[in-house]
Amino acid sequence: MGQAFNQEFKTEAEHRAFITAQGIMPLGFRAGSTRFEFTPAEVTKPAKMNLTVIAADVPTADFAAVFTRNAVAGAPILIGRERLNSPTLAAIVINNKISNVGTTTGVADAEAVCAAAAAALGIPTSAVLPASTGVIGWKLPRQAIIDALPHAIAALSATSFAPAAQAIMTTDLYPKARTAAVGQGRITGIAKGAGMIEPNMATMLGFVITDLAVPRTELRAILSRVVDATFNAISIDSDTSTSDMVVAMSSGKVPCADLGAFETALTVVCAGLAEDVVRNGEGVHHVMRVSVKGVANPAWAKAIGKAIVNSPLVKTAICGNDPNVGRLLAAIGKTIGANDWPLNPREAQVSMGGHVLFSKGAFVLSPDLEDKLRAYLEATELYRSAGTPDGLFHPPVHFPPHDRCVEIEVAWPAANVDQAITIVGADLSHEYVTENADYRS
Amino acid sequence: MGQAFNQEFKTEAEHRAFITAQGIMPLGFRAGSTRFEFTPAEVTKPAKMNLTVIAADVPTADFAAVFTRNAVAGAPILIGRERLNSPTLAAIVINNKISNVGTTTGVADAEAVCAAAAAALGIPTSAVLPASTGVIGWKLPRQAIIDALPHAIAALSATSFAPAAQAIMTTDLYPKARTAAVGQGRITGIAKGAGMIEPNMATMLGFVITDLAVPRTELRAILSRVVDATFNAISIDSDTSTSDMVVAMSSGKVPCADLGAFETALTVVCAGLAEDVVRNGEGVHHVMRVSVKGVANPAWAKAIGKAIVNSPLVKTAICGNDPNVGRLLAAIGKTIGANDWPLNPREAQVSMGGHVLFSKGAFVLSPDLEDKLRAYLEATELYRSAGTPDGLFHPPVHFPPHDRCVEIEVAWPAANVDQAITIVGADLSHEYVTENADYRS
Repeated sequence: MGQAFNQEFKTEAEHRAFITAQGIMPLGFRAGSTRFEFTPAEVTKPAKMNLTVIAADVPTADFAAVFTRNAVAGAPILIGRERLNSPTLAAIVINNKISNVGTTTGVADAEAVCAAAAAALGIPTSAVLPASTGVIGWKLPRQAIIDALPHAIAALSATSFAPAAQAIMTTDLYPKARTAAVGQGRITGIAKGAGMIEPNMATMLGFVITDLAVPRTELRAILSRVVDATFNAISIDSDTSTSDMVVAMSSGKVPCADLGAFETALTVVCAGLAEDVVRNGEGVHHVMRVSVKGVANPAWAKAIGKAIVNSPLVKTAICGNDPNVGRLLAAIGKTIGANDWPLNPREAQVSMGGHVLFSKGAFVLSPDLEDKLRAYLEATELYRSAGTPDGLFHPPVHFPPHDRCVEIEVAWPAANVDQAITIVGADLSHEYVTENADYRS
Repeated sequence: MGQAFNQEFKTEAEHRAFITAQGIMPLGFRAGSTRFEFTPAEVTKPAKMNLTVIAADVPTADFAAVFTRNAVAGAPILIGRERLNSPTLAAIVINNKISNVGTTTGVADAEAVCAAAAAALGIPTSAVLPASTGVIGWKLPRQAIIDALPHAIAALSATSFAPAAQAIMTTDLYPKARTAAVGQGRITGIAKGAGMIEPNMATMLGFVITDLAVPRTELRAILSRVVDATFNAISIDSDTSTSDMVVAMSSGKVPCADLGAFETALTVVCAGLAEDVVRNGEGVHHVMRVSVKGVANPAWAKAIGKAIVNSPLVKTAICGNDPNVGRLLAAIGKTIGANDWPLNPREAQVSMGGHVLFSKGAFVLSPDLEDKLRAYLEATELYRSAGTPDGLFHPPVHFPPHDRCVEIEVAWPAANVDQAITIVGADLSHEYVTENADYRS
């Protein structure tokens, strides 16, 4: 997953130009947004909400979606699972700020919003999919959203998907869009998500649209496989959201001659977006890409990779450019030991940035290697912490300066198993704590 | 686990007096420590090490130990598992700073230290148990330890166990000791550990000594049960160490008339130490005690409790005194959903500090409840973050100001299952990040 594009961005403007270039709208779609203020019922402070509509010019039978496996699913997820049986999908209505989870009126609120959008667009309510992201437990401001809908619909435009990528953000620092061409057609996806990210089905809101004609059945099978290898292989903080979804829609405007090429291109788009989500994760200074090789059982390999990227001690060491590599082995051993798997960590070879750290049952550490690893971690750092006098930390950039990862490999060379799993995760920094503890929701 | 003692400590001196009072030495034991400087082979900066010896006056057959389940086990763990077959145990040699894990000479180094201690004490090497804590991957400074041993042995004293509780610390802010009397006899335990704490067998070094005569077989069965309900039910950062161990030794000086009373007292000692370890965890501002009720399968109940205390988003919200309670339900749902358990989170009742937050499928939130929960979180806070101008965070106290917990209850009232599991965990703060990222090992 996630081949490096070897991109560096010197300024936010450079990155915005990249997003604009990636936001090419496939034929047959429009998107529009609006922003408004309201006061949630549960607190006294006003809040701002973005409302975004993605619309197909013609309702399409060819759509697919995957949803969170969190057993506490939001109202949009409950409705979305039903929508999979709808004959067609024509629009997606997305709000940020409130995720519409765990309230008595959640499903009715979301259906009322869908009905209002359907009436305005002249389509059936069953062809409208709701999507929400934000605080869990608060009521959706139904009437305020319905009042705002005409503004979002009036803004619908086929010019670019990039403004929608911007509008669906919450704590994201910058928008995420990826595109790929297949023959004369195109796949373009946007995603949001920066915290509560260990998707178990999809990440917190991903929308992929294509003009390539891929029938519903094939689209659903392909999306499921692609999401499993991309969005489901990332973790920022091990917290699986209640509201994750990835939706794919085809307008069918361009014939698709090669489903294999479509799947490859969709994988490129989703892997890029998934890695973007991690790189823009709350407080992320380093993206870790862990490759686990030589483990016959892919679930075990995935668990080992996840254990590394989710270990707070590995995460904080990486954050501090500290080659405290014993923590890598502790994370591997913790997982194998807790599950009693017949895998011997002493037979593993562990490397970082191509430098072997552990081999033949022992660490191979030295002051020289320590210096090399520290330099490698510094080179893969996105930014350095800078605290403010009040003890708060704010990321100093609103764009990703580069797309380098901390490459970690865990291999069982003697296993003679030709299988590799890649997990992408992130470090843990003061900025994560500031984002999630120092501000009140 | 861990009934509150309702203790408040206004000063470090008050807490030290408490530790001294808890450090009563049972009959038949002595302990002594020394401190020395050395330079690890893997770096260029000198380091300091504490060496502690715990000695029984007479070698005893009645000892028990439980060890980490991390598949990457340190040399002391490998040796300790063998020592369980020794006819007697007479001494424990403990070093901090280096955990003696993953080096080619680890077992030989530890055995050489044991042999030197055995020679000095006039006991067999097989009666000496090694224990190490600290950096993973570094070589034990064998000769420096052997040179320091006579000083630790010269310091052996039966006055108090409290100095040993101080000497075995690493990043701990203060020593941890707990005692309980049973008839004329006594159980006293000490523990260290502040990070890499989600014990899966024992916590990072706990030593319990008693003068009550409990035979080896019974002692081992009792210790296993007690550790499972105490040390194995805590988590600071979900990282299971490579070096965890809890050892119990009986001098047999006092007859034990009631093994049930002994087990109860041992549970009080171990529960107190386990909760102390969490309260003194790296950067801990709040101790969370999660009670899961009405789940028939104790493993599921334990996993739900662990999911809450290990969720970075729950941890950071609690740290910030932010009643962002939707994250509690997300953590519960994540675990149930990922495992496909037939448990409906919508039927759960969730409360914090006695305030019901979620009941009958929906949150019951209001500005008034928000204020109450915030006040409750402030009352259970150990200290507030205070950043320094250089952006670093240091805990402002070296003692626990109180022993209050954030009490969280997750219950399935309709399940008619009379089972409760308690998990003790901690929040996640800037001080944790500073401890683990901002300093170089």
